Amino acid sequence: MSSEPKATLKSVRSAVEEELSIFLNRESAYLNSISSDLSPVSDSLTSFLLDSGKRLRPLFAYAGFAAAGGSLEKSAIRAMAALELLQACALIHDDLMDGSDTRRGKPSIHRHFESVHVQDQLDGFAPQYGLSAAVLLGDLALVWSDQMLNTAGLTTEQFARVLPFYNEMRVELMAGQFLDIHEQTQKDTSVDRSMKIARYKSGKYTIERPLHLGAAMTSSSKEVTDSLSAYGLPLGEAFQLRDDLLGVFGDPSVTGKPAGDDLREGKRTVLIAMTHERQSPAQLEICKKYFGKPDIDAEGVATLQEIIESTGARAELEATIDRLTDQALTAAQSQVFTDDGKALLVELANIATKRSS
Amino acid sequence: MSSEPKATLKSVRSAVEEELSIFLNRESAYLNSISSDLSPVSDSLTSFLLDSGKRLRPLFAYAGFAAAGGSLEKSAIRAMAALELLQACALIHDDLMDGSDTRRGKPSIHRHFESVHVQDQLDGFAPQYGLSAAVLLGDLALVWSDQMLNTAGLTTEQFARVLPFYNEMRVELMAGQFLDIHEQTQKDTSVDRSMKIARYKSGKYTIERPLHLGAAMTSSSKEVTDSLSAYGLPLGEAFQLRDDLLGVFGDPSVTGKPAGDDLREGKRTVLIAMTHERQSPAQLEICKKYFGKPDIDAEGVATLQEIIESTGARAELEATIDRLTDQALTAAQSQVFTDDGKALLVELANIATKRSS
Repeated sequence: MSSEPKATLKSVRSAVEEELSIFLNRESAYLNSISSDLSPVSDSLTSFLLDSGKRLRPLFAYAGFAAAGGSLEKSAIRAMAALELLQACALIHDDLMDGSDTRRGKPSIHRHFESVHVQDQLDGFAPQYGLSAAVLLGDLALVWSDQMLNTAGLTTEQFARVLPFYNEMRVELMAGQFLDIHEQTQKDTSVDRSMKIARYKSGKYTIERPLHLGAAMTSSSKEVTDSLSAYGLPLGEAFQLRDDLLGVFGDPSVTGKPAGDDLREGKRTVLIAMTHERQSPAQLEICKKYFGKPDIDAEGVATLQEIIESTGARAELEATIDRLTDQALTAAQSQVFTDDGKALLVELANIATKRSS
Repeated sequence: MSSEPKATLKSVRSAVEEELSIFLNRESAYLNSISSDLSPVSDSLTSFLLDSGKRLRPLFAYAGFAAAGGSLEKSAIRAMAALELLQACALIHDDLMDGSDTRRGKPSIHRHFESVHVQDQLDGFAPQYGLSAAVLLGDLALVWSDQMLNTAGLTTEQFARVLPFYNEMRVELMAGQFLDIHEQTQKDTSVDRSMKIARYKSGKYTIERPLHLGAAMTSSSKEVTDSLSAYGLPLGEAFQLRDDLLGVFGDPSVTGKPAGDDLREGKRTVLIAMTHERQSPAQLEICKKYFGKPDIDAEGVATLQEIIESTGARAELEATIDRLTDQALTAAQSQVFTDDGKALLVELANIATKRSS
């Protein structure tokens, strides 16, 4: 940035959104040149990507980039923004797999297309149309993510350094997602297994790899990469544990998801595994009655929340989040990072773990 | 190939399969190093990719490469083999969207995981597990495709020439797939619309783009690219029309799909659109009774086959396939192609349009 004004998270977020908007405009026009019947695809993806989103992955990538000494370039911002398209794929497919009705307070993609099918009285079976649209829109977001990265204008050297992290990040995401659906099929719960899922599905994918990817755009130092892991891995786990807590205790008006959504879905998170380890036989019976039941009512949700609270699992998780965040904050002070980078890493650690949505 | 023995389609197919096998072995080991719970993922994808497959897209890529003057290199074969992983994603997601039970005579991926869920008496809802596994395995195949291409060892120049075609190919595939599911929701059928779907979903994706991709590995000549389009576009349409015929009249023991599968699914192919244009009001009534009914029996299938036959739609399609294939064969003689390339293009034109599976 040398002579330019210092980049803030807010200015990076705006730059990311601007690049996303340019990319989506261009590619939507291309789709519509193939057929106007593709406008529901481009419209839905554009609104999914631009209407909201915290842009956490690009922001972590930028923090890694700044910490490693990079100064703001449009090509780097474009490459970072590509992570939002990867995340769009993950969310669209995740909602389909979980059967979630809403995302960020709006209908999820499969539900949206299902409703369009019903409203327009189209031929065929509405849920199948919703499913197909969600599969394809997620696939397209994944392809676009790659396309946005490989047309970002990175130099050959930057691109070659970034690719291994990008490949690993995407494989880790899919691995974590599969471990997650596998976990839901097991007879018992396990804090260790759920921790590993949190690490792959969320910790590495949301924080460690974006940091690496950003750093790789400006540096090939293994010391920087390792120091970013020392910050990113504990923070990534703390991030996911916060997600677990929000999935049970979050305020629906802020999360955009129904209250106790994870309880309804029967998600085997670290929070739930910890509760199971600690609960009494009587509490276990109550859990069996409500946990993972699609028709659970407000009272059932409140009962489960009370059990989680009374076993001490909630407090234990809050304490773990604090401990992991402290670890990350200490690692953020590594002398290999630039001062600007350190400040961004500290700011992001707070955003990732103290958020309410 | 200069001093080496001339590559045949058979030798290229073997080389592609060997590279796929090496890639899948290495990446399966990596997945299993994350968790042994990922072995169902790596086992299923490996068997899906290696047990069978015509390798058409890599073969077309090789033909484009040879026609443009390329000589066999391992890195090029690896890059071409990546197309098989993209195709695995397309098939796995396609079967899920169509609700198809079988693929190449074996259970489709979602059905396979659904059965495992039932057999192992896992917790949760088997169809949801099957759906989730198919979504994720398809996603992973898409990511692996890209990874295999970007780690193939192409030179920077080769890679830079290949990428635009690869990007366009993947977007066209997803666009074609969406137009296809959209078509299934329309009140009427249209030969023009179905032709466009055939072009994007199959023609460009299976033939034209692989040819371009292969040629780009050795040449940047626009003349070569255009001449490959002159061959690939009509052949691609002929290929898809053969698919339409096989979906209705194919021998189940050869196609690995139930007899009249497209009729059961109610697929609005060019063949069906053509039949609808020609059928009598009485035939229309019979069509309405059977077409797209999941429980259609052998008699119903035979009745629909007779109608398609008697309207002349089948004969018309066969004639169109012949005409398009002739067009392609003429274009294969372009003087910009090498002699080896011409021979491969002719051989592949016959394979793509005269096949029975």
